[in-house]
Amino acid sequence: MSNAAIAQTPSINGFEPTAMQALVDIVTRDPKQAVTTFRVRSEWKGGARSEAHVDGYELGGQKIARKHVIKSDEPREFFGEDSAPNPQDLLLAALNACMLYGYASGASMMGIVLDSASIESEGTLDVRRAMGLTEEVPAGFPTIKYRVRLRARNATREQLEELHKAVMNGSPNRYHLASPIPLVATLDVG
Amino acid sequence: MSNAAIAQTPSINGFEPTAMQALVDIVTRDPKQAVTTFRVRSEWKGGARSEAHVDGYELGGQKIARKHVIKSDEPREFFGEDSAPNPQDLLLAALNACMLYGYASGASMMGIVLDSASIESEGTLDVRRAMGLTEEVPAGFPTIKYRVRLRARNATREQLEELHKAVMNGSPNRYHLASPIPLVATLDVG
Repeated sequence: MSNAAIAQTPSINGFEPTAMQALVDIVTRDPKQAVTTFRVRSEWKGGARSEAHVDGYELGGQKIARKHVIKSDEPREFFGEDSAPNPQDLLLAALNACMLYGYASGASMMGIVLDSASIESEGTLDVRRAMGLTEEVPAGFPTIKYRVRLRARNATREQLEELHKAVMNGSPNRYHLASPIPLVATLDVG
Repeated sequence: MSNAAIAQTPSINGFEPTAMQALVDIVTRDPKQAVTTFRVRSEWKGGARSEAHVDGYELGGQKIARKHVIKSDEPREFFGEDSAPNPQDLLLAALNACMLYGYASGASMMGIVLDSASIESEGTLDVRRAMGLTEEVPAGFPTIKYRVRLRARNATREQLEELHKAVMNGSPNRYHLASPIPLVATLDVG
């Protein structure tokens, strides 16, 4: 982008509406550019510990290298060392992060300046199913509750409710939890 | 546990079967002890960045303090700084970590010694729904594929397939993706 263009499009909430509009134009013209593949390779590290490795992702058929490591462990009550978030912590963090991105980027497209945004989510599960002791309870959270707090400088309640609806409709990770996703497993035992 | 008891129950895969059996006994006697609540509070940190905070969890009605932070960001193509895993990376990591825990702990209960265990998972989504450009594609991954690799020292193929079935049946995060979870949202706009 030229300096002149940057001057014309001040950042809102850390996003540049001109750059966002450019992506809208690209994927509208060529929908294949919107196809995105995420892949995570995780290794068991002994006991309750594991490490997930992100080596990149694919966008519009092009591989883009990135390097991230996500560790997991369990609290001591579940025989871990509490050295990292557990899998349910990671899942709720994934949900919150995806929706916060939706609120912040969506607000920017609507011209809404956010002072703050936060989400608290929670779920309660009965670990007896995971322990193989009963089939009479679901394996995970029967429901997930979450509270979104938005503080905006220049928005009506109606605009924030519109933004809220857009995030409920469009957030990938909200969809992954709210909808049944077919999981296709392959077992390789050498 | 006394030193004598430890001597009688060598660790398998980093788990102590005696300690695991003790938890089985507790939750069988008093199922309320199996009720577990996870809660994550996430704050938007500007642009595509957010931070999730874990302050503890509840087990059998008792609050247990823990401290973990999980950062998230987006790659540059989605207007982030690529300073941390993105929400989809975190979601797949949460899935893998939960299932790896299931394989490792389940193997220990079955007396199977694992040399290694890994899971690679992936999904492909069309970001146009998240961008509000179409309703004609799902918001997230239509399916998730994953490959489990187990290398065991002393197990038959049948035992490993039994373990695989138990993880598919009992893994909380697998359930959270495979089943539709009602999400109950509250919007607070001050």
